[in-house]
Amino acid sequence: MTSTPVARPDEVRRHNRTTLLRLLHVSGPSTRATLAAELGLNRSTIKTLVDGLAEAGVVEERVPRPGRGAGRPSLLVLPQPHAAVVLAVDLQVEHVAIALVGLGGQILGRNSWNLRGRMRAADEVITHVLESTAMLAGDLGVEPVAAGVSVPGVVRRADGYVHEAPNLRWTDVALGERLGGVLRIPILVGNDAELGAVAEHLRGAARGSSDAVYISADVGVGGGVIAEGSSLRGGAGYVGEVGHMVVRPGGRACYCGSSGCWETEVGEAALCRALGLPEDTPRGAIVVELRALGRDPSAAASRLAEFVEWLTLGLVNVVNLLGPQLVVLGDLLTVLPEEIVRSVAADVRRRSLVSRAVGGTRIVSSALGADVKLLGAAEVAFESALDRV
Amino acid sequence: MTSTPVARPDEVRRHNRTTLLRLLHVSGPSTRATLAAELGLNRSTIKTLVDGLAEAGVVEERVPRPGRGAGRPSLLVLPQPHAAVVLAVDLQVEHVAIALVGLGGQILGRNSWNLRGRMRAADEVITHVLESTAMLAGDLGVEPVAAGVSVPGVVRRADGYVHEAPNLRWTDVALGERLGGVLRIPILVGNDAELGAVAEHLRGAARGSSDAVYISADVGVGGGVIAEGSSLRGGAGYVGEVGHMVVRPGGRACYCGSSGCWETEVGEAALCRALGLPEDTPRGAIVVELRALGRDPSAAASRLAEFVEWLTLGLVNVVNLLGPQLVVLGDLLTVLPEEIVRSVAADVRRRSLVSRAVGGTRIVSSALGADVKLLGAAEVAFESALDRV
Repeated sequence: MTSTPVARPDEVRRHNRTTLLRLLHVSGPSTRATLAAELGLNRSTIKTLVDGLAEAGVVEERVPRPGRGAGRPSLLVLPQPHAAVVLAVDLQVEHVAIALVGLGGQILGRNSWNLRGRMRAADEVITHVLESTAMLAGDLGVEPVAAGVSVPGVVRRADGYVHEAPNLRWTDVALGERLGGVLRIPILVGNDAELGAVAEHLRGAARGSSDAVYISADVGVGGGVIAEGSSLRGGAGYVGEVGHMVVRPGGRACYCGSSGCWETEVGEAALCRALGLPEDTPRGAIVVELRALGRDPSAAASRLAEFVEWLTLGLVNVVNLLGPQLVVLGDLLTVLPEEIVRSVAADVRRRSLVSRAVGGTRIVSSALGADVKLLGAAEVAFESALDRV
Repeated sequence: MTSTPVARPDEVRRHNRTTLLRLLHVSGPSTRATLAAELGLNRSTIKTLVDGLAEAGVVEERVPRPGRGAGRPSLLVLPQPHAAVVLAVDLQVEHVAIALVGLGGQILGRNSWNLRGRMRAADEVITHVLESTAMLAGDLGVEPVAAGVSVPGVVRRADGYVHEAPNLRWTDVALGERLGGVLRIPILVGNDAELGAVAEHLRGAARGSSDAVYISADVGVGGGVIAEGSSLRGGAGYVGEVGHMVVRPGGRACYCGSSGCWETEVGEAALCRALGLPEDTPRGAIVVELRALGRDPSAAASRLAEFVEWLTLGLVNVVNLLGPQLVVLGDLLTVLPEEIVRSVAADVRRRSLVSRAVGGTRIVSSALGADVKLLGAAEVAFESALDRV
């Protein structure tokens, strides 16, 4: 508590400008009156801030399309996408996507490629990301002012050091430093589930929830936590790894040194086992099989019974430990039959003391689709960039 | 993120005053030069603030006892205990303690009593707390300006509503409202483990750790979390309940509706079973038995083997989910033989992916003794009180 920062008057104006810009960035075009009301600032302060931003080309004021109301319509303040562009990188186990994202959250351009064999080595991935970024930025005629990178692993936020990304077979990669050394912009590296949570909180199912958890379930399983409205990080800037919570003592050995981890029971390989598919079944085929199963609810319930029990048990623990109002299921879990998600949600509420206290934790599937981590990566980059626009 | 508050210049001075007072309250007497350095404020600002506080009788400046150095010694700024007094209440399953605590953290006076049968009903407890507080405040000639209350249960911080305190058999008690209605001061009610974490962070083993977890293990088991330097609360102001994390699927049924909860495996009753004592053995006798066992390490290891395995497994989960640098074991766990704590700590480090990433999570026993939750309750009351001193 002794570290509470002190604020100086000259920082206040800057802070207000950034806050206004963040509101426009996240909520989109707004009138001055709305901005004043939402920020609790008087209209003359808003006028000064908006005029300054308009002069700098960061926003534009425009007459909205005519509505049905009488009278003169209020001018809308619009963020200008090209005023601040960030690079977003989503590093997955089999696939890399990059995008250049403008102020307001619009994807201005994107590129992606598959990873196979040697291509997955850190050196190769970094080189490819740098080359693709240069090409894409050149094509679009923009220069990113910051970058966010999503990594499926244990990452130190302070400097983007990847301690371990086991499914990529990366250990000890100074990713932030290496990208920053070439791109010469701030690089924010985050755990993929953490960035998924950020995206859901700002632009997805968890919008307006101050306490939410996002569960990623890809090859690995992870969790990102929004606590009291902001992203939670663990000690030394490392976010926790819910995938390595033990749900089944004495269960399958996990590479992490423990056994019966949630990831070994509800990750992609476990889902393949539950579906009677080989563990290396391509993602597309797993999705096809799950969707087919969804058309026969009782068959789905019986074939997935054990998988669902471990999923439920892990969710009970997550809810009891973190007390979220909302859990968003991502990735492969979004393909689970709707009936199953509903019954898991009901079971978690029944079996979790804390769910009852928070008025029943809601459990829903992500609706942001495949871009969720790319969007989260863009947002952490904007977090660093908005006060420099 | 859109809810980032905006700061107005007139709030800045107030904020700086509170920050300075908090530093004196937590760190004790300091020179003006130290205050300036720690707060990053210039000396004239510090002078203005200290002069104002001295004039209001909140601090005193005094020549320190002569040291060995030559030259004129710097004046020390001392917080005045009677300038702000708070009430701290520690509600345990068998015992209630109250204390009046002065600015700087000194206990000015205290009182406690046992709970038996009807005495444990919410009405009786509230009446007794109010009567004892009035007597104690009268004896000391002080008036508390805020109160903090520690409750072993699921508590909503915003208004001190006790949703469930199962081991007390309390449900739906508007504790904050009822105490506040009579005392007419702000009442801050917290979960006992949460307040234990606050005390350890400010005055105990977790001082200086920005990410720490405190485990309380009394009749029930709970956890309090310090994340990025402040106390973590869950959705709707409810803190999580690590005691109801399932560590043993299919294990003993728990009153919470789940089974194999951490609390059923490492709570007081489980410890009794491990020691071969009846489950209702009085606390004192459990402690005597544990201390005796501590004198024979190999017997201790074998008799406690299963208990230790569930303790370890739960700690692996806590570390993997929350990524703390430090875990502080409280209550009954402080009586575990030292060798056992050391071996649990080594096992948790080995079996937890995140522990390795944060450089090895340390696991230690609390050294604050029986007052830990009382101290935590005082501190949350001071959090609310310091900006009104």
